[in-house]
Amino acid sequence: MRGSDRPAVALGAGEFCRGVIDEVADVVAAVKPQVAFFEALGHDGVRELESVVAHAKAAGLVVVLDAKRGDIGSTAEAYAHACLDDSGPLGADAVTLSPYLGAESMAPFLKRLEAGKGVFVLVRTSNPGSGAWQGTDAEAIAAKVGAWIAAENAKRAASFPYGPVGAVIAATLPEEADRWRSAMPKSWFLVPGFGAQGADASDVREHLREGLGALITSSRGVLFPSSGTEMDWRRGVRERALAFASEVRTVSD
Amino acid sequence: MRGSDRPAVALGAGEFCRGVIDEVADVVAAVKPQVAFFEALGHDGVRELESVVAHAKAAGLVVVLDAKRGDIGSTAEAYAHACLDDSGPLGADAVTLSPYLGAESMAPFLKRLEAGKGVFVLVRTSNPGSGAWQGTDAEAIAAKVGAWIAAENAKRAASFPYGPVGAVIAATLPEEADRWRSAMPKSWFLVPGFGAQGADASDVREHLREGLGALITSSRGVLFPSSGTEMDWRRGVRERALAFASEVRTVSD
Repeated sequence: MRGSDRPAVALGAGEFCRGVIDEVADVVAAVKPQVAFFEALGHDGVRELESVVAHAKAAGLVVVLDAKRGDIGSTAEAYAHACLDDSGPLGADAVTLSPYLGAESMAPFLKRLEAGKGVFVLVRTSNPGSGAWQGTDAEAIAAKVGAWIAAENAKRAASFPYGPVGAVIAATLPEEADRWRSAMPKSWFLVPGFGAQGADASDVREHLREGLGALITSSRGVLFPSSGTEMDWRRGVRERALAFASEVRTVSD
Repeated sequence: MRGSDRPAVALGAGEFCRGVIDEVADVVAAVKPQVAFFEALGHDGVRELESVVAHAKAAGLVVVLDAKRGDIGSTAEAYAHACLDDSGPLGADAVTLSPYLGAESMAPFLKRLEAGKGVFVLVRTSNPGSGAWQGTDAEAIAAKVGAWIAAENAKRAASFPYGPVGAVIAATLPEEADRWRSAMPKSWFLVPGFGAQGADASDVREHLREGLGALITSSRGVLFPSSGTEMDWRRGVRERALAFASEVRTVSD
């Protein structure tokens, strides 16, 4: 793409996203904008991201910013402000975090929990090669991150019966779900991998075991409803969202 | 900060950064803009980041975007485009990456190596709590990431005598430097922790062992030269940059 095309493409992307929000606002609980695709369009894209987040909040949706941020000290504080603060440019309700830099990299985000904000920390992700470094044994980094999440939520059990420090636990690894649910019984799970990545309702049964503790996401499965051109895209998005919600409901009811 | 103040604050931040670049362009090899501080100012901040990167490139400096990105699939591709492509909004020379999601999360960035772009992957970071999850034993994630970096550079030894897959190895852990240098002998190191974080020239001796293989960074030490108000800030920045370069040179010569 030429740089001169970016403002127009960004505006089109923003209009598409606002249209999707209008179609799904009464069907789903939350939306999860993927920051990368807006950043690829430069500051014009970031302006549209700000508008899309505001549009979703105005429609009463929870906004989980999928940013996978992770840094330390004043830099982590700047990311926390950028993503979560209502006085900042986005003011999302929650953000995804990458934990490689350690617990202190999450501290500035956790300061915002009392203000009603939340985080979802990567624990076990849905990509095929995720196990190589995250690992699955008790000494592995994923287990340590999971234990830290459970401890942070235990500290806050009086104010938050369901802990605001969430975990990203892929739907595509159903054989691990029981283990992670046992490790983090009162933590929100953000569960990607549904639909386009191959998982279905049977794969998220354990994630949902504690009742209201999982946010099951579907992105491409809802956003790109048809490979043909004849269908109205708004109607397609709505139909896919309704089908997705109905499928998830078969497990959670 | 009120949202209405953001355009003016962003412009001021951009002017400051362009002024710093003008002062240090003949003193240092590279600049490392920290993306978080621009994002905290919303799309106005991102516009200034684009301008700052362009200004540094025009001044002949290598630009390492400190973004610590990490995601998978099409999202990682979008981040790689956003950060590195000359047809994208920033076109930086290199970017820092967080490896939690595994080797495949780096693949879209590595596709850009042949075009002269580079990456620096977090291995051992300078924050006090970094060891808890990165670990230091042979089985730990940091060791696995280091081994992967060395292997990726070995694959490319014919075209790149000094591997373009770099590693972030903190200056504040000099006792580990020999071990990481031995694990990645022909890899660029990005070495934070100098100055404000407490490391000095004696701490980076091992990082620099293979000759031209380390980029020692100083951020707050150069950017905030004086707590007083009497000194011209541009002169202060230049003096600090000269002192920093001179100190690093005592090791590398």
